[in-house]
Amino acid sequence: MGLPGTLVRSDIEPLYHPEVGGLLDLGLSGLVKSDFEAIRKRFDQAFLELRALEEGEIANQDEQRMVGHYWLRCPERAPSSELRDSINAAREEVVQFSKKILSAGEFESVLVIGIGGSALGPQFVYDALKGSGLKLFFSDNTDAEGLQDTLSTIVDLSKLLVLVISKSGGTKETRNGMLLVKEAFRESGLSFHENAVAITGEGSALAAIAGEEGWLASFPMWDWVGGRTSVMSAVGLLPAALQGADTEAFLDGAKKMDEWTRTDEFLRNPAALLAGAWCIYNEQYGVTNMVVLPYRDRLLLMSRYLQQLVMESIGKSHDRDGKPHFGGISVFGNKGSTDQHAFVQQLRDGRRDFHATLISALSAESNAGRFVGLTNYEVEKGVTADDYLNGFCLGTRQALFDAARPSLLLQFDCLNAHSLGAAIALYERAVSLYATLVNVNAYHQPGVEAGKKAAGEVVALQKRVEGFFAENAGKGFTVTEVARGLDLDSSDSYLFYVLRHLSHTGRLTEKQSQAVTEWSFSS
Amino acid sequence: MGLPGTLVRSDIEPLYHPEVGGLLDLGLSGLVKSDFEAIRKRFDQAFLELRALEEGEIANQDEQRMVGHYWLRCPERAPSSELRDSINAAREEVVQFSKKILSAGEFESVLVIGIGGSALGPQFVYDALKGSGLKLFFSDNTDAEGLQDTLSTIVDLSKLLVLVISKSGGTKETRNGMLLVKEAFRESGLSFHENAVAITGEGSALAAIAGEEGWLASFPMWDWVGGRTSVMSAVGLLPAALQGADTEAFLDGAKKMDEWTRTDEFLRNPAALLAGAWCIYNEQYGVTNMVVLPYRDRLLLMSRYLQQLVMESIGKSHDRDGKPHFGGISVFGNKGSTDQHAFVQQLRDGRRDFHATLISALSAESNAGRFVGLTNYEVEKGVTADDYLNGFCLGTRQALFDAARPSLLLQFDCLNAHSLGAAIALYERAVSLYATLVNVNAYHQPGVEAGKKAAGEVVALQKRVEGFFAENAGKGFTVTEVARGLDLDSSDSYLFYVLRHLSHTGRLTEKQSQAVTEWSFSS
Repeated sequence: MGLPGTLVRSDIEPLYHPEVGGLLDLGLSGLVKSDFEAIRKRFDQAFLELRALEEGEIANQDEQRMVGHYWLRCPERAPSSELRDSINAAREEVVQFSKKILSAGEFESVLVIGIGGSALGPQFVYDALKGSGLKLFFSDNTDAEGLQDTLSTIVDLSKLLVLVISKSGGTKETRNGMLLVKEAFRESGLSFHENAVAITGEGSALAAIAGEEGWLASFPMWDWVGGRTSVMSAVGLLPAALQGADTEAFLDGAKKMDEWTRTDEFLRNPAALLAGAWCIYNEQYGVTNMVVLPYRDRLLLMSRYLQQLVMESIGKSHDRDGKPHFGGISVFGNKGSTDQHAFVQQLRDGRRDFHATLISALSAESNAGRFVGLTNYEVEKGVTADDYLNGFCLGTRQALFDAARPSLLLQFDCLNAHSLGAAIALYERAVSLYATLVNVNAYHQPGVEAGKKAAGEVVALQKRVEGFFAENAGKGFTVTEVARGLDLDSSDSYLFYVLRHLSHTGRLTEKQSQAVTEWSFSS
Repeated sequence: MGLPGTLVRSDIEPLYHPEVGGLLDLGLSGLVKSDFEAIRKRFDQAFLELRALEEGEIANQDEQRMVGHYWLRCPERAPSSELRDSINAAREEVVQFSKKILSAGEFESVLVIGIGGSALGPQFVYDALKGSGLKLFFSDNTDAEGLQDTLSTIVDLSKLLVLVISKSGGTKETRNGMLLVKEAFRESGLSFHENAVAITGEGSALAAIAGEEGWLASFPMWDWVGGRTSVMSAVGLLPAALQGADTEAFLDGAKKMDEWTRTDEFLRNPAALLAGAWCIYNEQYGVTNMVVLPYRDRLLLMSRYLQQLVMESIGKSHDRDGKPHFGGISVFGNKGSTDQHAFVQQLRDGRRDFHATLISALSAESNAGRFVGLTNYEVEKGVTADDYLNGFCLGTRQALFDAARPSLLLQFDCLNAHSLGAAIALYERAVSLYATLVNVNAYHQPGVEAGKKAAGEVVALQKRVEGFFAENAGKGFTVTEVARGLDLDSSDSYLFYVLRHLSHTGRLTEKQSQAVTEWSFSS
């Protein structure tokens, strides 16, 4: 285990697709053809399964669901006419609705309330593409202070369109965000429903609210699309259309990438090269960290987007045969060349437990309108700022290789809606393939439930604590006494912090002592 | 190696300091007193060295420099009256200058141009504290498109104050950013120097420019303060003062944390507990990833700030005796509870190669002015949005522990300038101590140079390529032919991408072929 002291030059040809305008180069990856040939059988299985998934097989066994995000950019591949029709209808509704909103000019900005896949996808697209449409804000937490900060920057709430995105409507963070924004509208003397749009599952709690209150519009979320792959459903398309991005190009880019990556010739398939590389790094070299360095300000969120997509999909406790697995790839990074002045020190000199993926775009579609000349401005004779950006990307790649740190290079001709769709599709397919290579279900997220459940326990305990102090009004108790009063287990990790939280939100008073367990609290 | 299947409850008491309003709890860390006792001797050495460093010893041996960031919040500890006077003078200048700017009302916003420590610190503080002063923008790259995006959102450049932050003035990204902004001013018919402020080292190239052009003001950067620990010098204080943050409280918080963490009783010293935990996780359990989850929107950049501070400081190839080291801790994370809907799936179910640090604040100082009632708004009877935030934090902590994933909890009574200063100081001191525990120099960054140097090579090659095509005007060449023409080594990784870059920025024309090495280019 462990990477060799010197990396070999790869014999794998860089792949390029002219319609996608995308290139993947494993030249400095330290991996060679024979590494991939050695797992040929597993690739065969992976292609087989991905084909079955695209044809509508129950790919998410645990939840007995089809997995259909690949149909979103190619409805004709959906396994039934009902599905095709609903995808096409939703797309058309998004187009019509956003056109109406943009042309009416009644709204200046949009607040997206969602969390996880219901926020990060739209946020990534917003950052990457900008656009000449509405300004977008995001609320993806249950932090009242954070939401206050955001709302305070919006001068006129009456011109704010609010998208509430939640499949079930039961996600607490999103429900809380919606309730707080509703309250802000009420405080401002505005009615919320005329500005509110729901994106949610059929028959969900959120659908019911939107229906009862007569919200402006509703768009569908389907149970066969997971949150982290929902950016090409209304979840991502509606915000993108409202920001003025070219959603057709976005979908077409993804479709083109899907086509490119359907080949079984894995050395000609960029998604297979990615999946295979992750697998070989992991199994052959014990390299389990993946650093993502996009050399463009606009792609800052790409590492976070891939972090969610990869880690939530493949970080699983058991494989599909029920055997203990505890696998995963830890994905992180921000952007180049900025990170070069930060953690790249460790990448180059420290632990060799990672591979890097450098992502670049040779140009970027400008929406700015102003200062467009800066791109060609010469900071030295014959040299532009972007020449340096290119130099830092290539230079860091070589410097990592020289220090025996492997990397992949993904390069797009131009950063625009088309290539962004392609980039997202590439990683979606790599994750699908990788999941088969290591035999895990990429389409569920059981571990997320544990934290939610535990949070519910904390809120329940908080209510019990408040009850206890209400019954014992005016009296003071140490933490130990409250624990005894509530008959709590000695291993309880919540009580002290629930007491502190109540005291710092004005519902109890605390008296500190030397040992924190001896602090006392009173109503 | 590897974490045990079940984690023990810690016997280490939580630490709390009333003046700091900060609490560190290792209860669910899986670590016990005896783990720390076992490295007592190394702690003795660490405290000794940190004391010597604070007294002005040459702590950065390689660069023969003192390391003085601890003096910034306590000038009386600086080892000479010259140093004391310069710290005090700079602080006073920041206060006077920002007062003048804020009261004159001529400026509406600030653009900070810097990279690494010269941008991330101010950016973190801006996000965490907001404030009622000027709006801040940041440019920390050499991406003309990114800068264009930023400048396009600023309506009136004449009301933009520009801070250029670079110790040497030689950092290409920052120099390029400055030149582009200057050009944008020129295009807009505005003179740059009346809006420009330099923060730079004495005698630097930037100091010379600022002097010659008569910039509005200049503030010092000292060679005894490293970039990643410069946030309490003018680098961080000036932007903070301009955003309307309480810089005195910020410094005082750090000073109080320094005092708290000077004790040699390591079980009563939170910086020592952090450093010790990192060390034990690393050496005893092979746990080398550190996930940072701050449960506050405003602290989103905290993980990135700590990533820079920790990884750039301790990710080194050799120890101080010249022995191969290749150590480090890989730091990443975004914010809770958002991340719970993303990569926390892997944390809970996947690889056990990390420890988590959950960071919370029981309240946050509001600057919003509007919608302040939202904090107390009940999303359910008796339950606020922040009750859920607290619940998710405690619940995730417990869920991780139940799955034998260790975590630390750092909690502040209130998120404000004082506690932010304290938090930063805590990690600065933990890094100082940790560096001694593992015997590395935390105060240099030799690995950063390799990428810079290589980038210079790329730009140099680009010029040669342009020369080649100028000499052979009108003719087309394959990549292989250009390589031959320029007498390049067969292992060259730059040429093809330099050619593509030139073609996609309009300086060459490319003709694609099946194999990328057979693409041809012409002028």
